[in-house]
Formats: sequence, C-alpha cells, structure tokens
Amino acid sequence: MAVKVYGIPMSTATRSVIAALIEKGVEFELVEVDMKAGAHKKPEHLKLNPFGKVPVYQDEDVTLFESRAITRYIATKYEGQGTPLLGKTTTERALVDQWVEVEGQNYHPAVSALNYQLFFRKIFSGEGPDEAAVAVNVEKFNAVLDIYEARLTASKYLAGDFFSLADLGHFAHTEYFVKHSGKSDLITSRPHVAAWWQDISSRPSWQKTITYGSS
Amino acid sequence: MAVKVYGIPMSTATRSVIAALIEKGVEFELVEVDMKAGAHKKPEHLKLNPFGKVPVYQDEDVTLFESRAITRYIATKYEGQGTPLLGKTTTERALVDQWVEVEGQNYHPAVSALNYQLFFRKIFSGEGPDEAAVAVNVEKFNAVLDIYEARLTASKYLAGDFFSLADLGHFAHTEYFVKHSGKSDLITSRPHVAAWWQDISSRPSWQKTITYGSS
Repeated sequence: MAVKVYGIPMSTATRSVIAALIEKGVEFELVEVDMKAGAHKKPEHLKLNPFGKVPVYQDEDVTLFESRAITRYIATKYEGQGTPLLGKTTTERALVDQWVEVEGQNYHPAVSALNYQLFFRKIFSGEGPDEAAVAVNVEKFNAVLDIYEARLTASKYLAGDFFSLADLGHFAHTEYFVKHSGKSDLITSRPHVAAWWQDISSRPSWQKTITYGSS
Repeated sequence: MAVKVYGIPMSTATRSVIAALIEKGVEFELVEVDMKAGAHKKPEHLKLNPFGKVPVYQDEDVTLFESRAITRYIATKYEGQGTPLLGKTTTERALVDQWVEVEGQNYHPAVSALNYQLFFRKIFSGEGPDEAAVAVNVEKFNAVLDIYEARLTASKYLAGDFFSLADLGHFAHTEYFVKHSGKSDLITSRPHVAAWWQDISSRPSWQKTITYGSS
C-alpha cells in the first residue's frame, strides 16, 4: 500500500507532513479531503481521525493523525534515507524533542492565533481581525521570538548545528505569517531568526511543498 | 552527577517528570524552585529554561525543559529498566506519540484551562472562575472525552493494551480535575474513561508522586 496523506495543500499541518516525506524521499499520494463540503466531519473521515481534522497519514502498517506524531514516525521509519531529522545521539534527540515541544506549546499557539486573525479569518468567515486577540498574541509571539533569537545566536538550528524535525515543524505557520500577516518584521527584525528562516525556507523540500496542489 | 529535577511538587509538569522517573526506577533529587519569590524568572533559572517555567531536568549529559520531551528522554535513556513506556515496535511507538500529541494539543488545553479557573485561580489570585471560560472549556473537554471514551472502549490504554508515556502524561491535570474542579462527573460518567483513570491513578508511581514533597 502506497503512503497516503489525507489533507489539503493549504493546511499547515498537512504541509508539515508533506515536507517531512519530501525530506525523506518517500513517495506518497495526497488524497484531498473536501473540507469546504465538510468531508472532514463525516463518518468516513472520522474513522481515520476522530477529531475530524487533517492530515491523516496511512501506510501498510498504521493510520495516524497529529502532524508532529506523523513527522516523527516518518523520520523514524525512514531513518536510513534522505535527511536525518531526529539527531544522532540520545542527547541530540532529546534536544530535538525539546524544541518540537517548544513549537507545539509556545510558538504554535501564538503564531496560529495571529495567522487566524490576520489571514485565515477573512478567508473563512469574511470577518476582519479581533484586534484584542492580535495584541495579546503579538506580545506572546514577541516573547517567544526573543528566546528563539538567543537560541539561534548560540546554534545554527534549534536543536543544534543540524536541521531537524524541530525546525521543520516551523515551516508552515511561519510561511503564512511572513507572507500574509502584515507583521513580518517580527521575524525580519531579529537577525538570527531572520537568517534561520531564510535558510530553512529555502530548502527544496519546503519550496516543493508550497507549490503542492497548485497548478 | 545525580539526576536533578528543578520544580515544585504541586506543578503538574513537575509531577509528570517525577512519575516517569519513578516508573523507570531512577533516583533523583528534587531541587525546589521558590516560585512564590519569583525564582523561576531570575537569571539563574532562565539559564536552565529561558521560558522561566518548571520543571527543568538535569543529568551528566543534558539540561532539558518541556515535560513531554523530558519524559520521552527518561523513557529512552532508561529503556532497559523499569516500566517500558515507549511501545515495542515502530507502529506502537507511533501510536504512543500520537496520543502524547493528543494530550498536548487537545486534552491539555481544555483541562488546564478548567483547572486554572476552578482551582488554581483562587489560590494564585484570590479570584473566582470566569464562568464564560469555564463553559467554553467544558464544551471542549466533553468533546475530547467523548473521543477518549470511544478509544478506551477499543483498547485498555490510549496507545493500545499497554501503559505508556501517553497515559502518564494525563496523570497530573486529571488528578486536580477529579479532586478539585467540582466537575469530576465529566470523567466518572464515562465508564471506560473512569475505569482507565481508576487503573492508571492507582499505579504506585502516581501514588508516590502525589505525596512527594508533603510531610
């Protein structure tokens, strides 16, 4: 059974999984879920992911949801090919895990709220941003980015001097934020964060991911 | 260098790390951080965790923050001793990771908001709950628990028929929620969730964790 990814090309979590598959050189089929028609909330999809979200990953061994678990599985199952994404030693792997968690618990809540208010909300509901929510999350995101600036002054990538799952998990929301939030200066005004973003977003995997599904 | 955990016994994330160390039979020293005096925001602690939170884990190889990354590191480094927490096969490990992520991204946001409103807020600020925030998060938590009930009907634990890191990550907030929220019926009214909670919370590791630091 070929690898299938159920999702949509504009979904941030779907893009993370696609980028990981490309980094590892794994062939896959993107099965588009018609979210506008509510297909993600119908029984057929809920069997794959009871939370009614995308993406879902499927191969001959497993059906998985939660994008960070999926990218870790891809990095583990295909450890012998493509870009190493997990770190070599137990200590390196721990630092990768630490920064994956920082993304999930600190970076993601702030940047996803800002992307919703400043970009997706208009698309989904026609409404403009809730300025109070923007202000709260700009403050949170600035605090997180100050810590990233210090970290990326000490090492080239988040977990050390090697690109890893931790960096990859930042691709999708940072792309939308830099291109569509009107607040890209939060990234570009911090020299080490800006250089890191320039570096990782130039990777062929990411450049291929963001053109996926457009034709 | 002995294993050190910087934290406080009532902190949910500190408790997760303590429980993992006990499950693996690892000796450790709990170094209490005087959070009432703001020690977690002072330079000495910020060197250990730039986010100014607890816990921080330290051994001869690494200094780590983010409790889910710490418990995974403990489970990996001490894989040969104590309770296996990671799953045996790549597929089992993927399911453990999936449910660790479900906890981090779905269960935790709802239950931690409820514990804050219904228990910690009074302790920290003397204020009662914001009833609108309670209502929103009860609805979210109910939706998550419906999915848990279905999952725990199909398997004894979250990742399968074995206790794992995924279950362990639920200890701390569920304990406070059941004992102090006044809404324990959300857990006890769902027979499979209730049986799972009864089972995991009876583990000696957890019973020892919740008495830690009390004297």
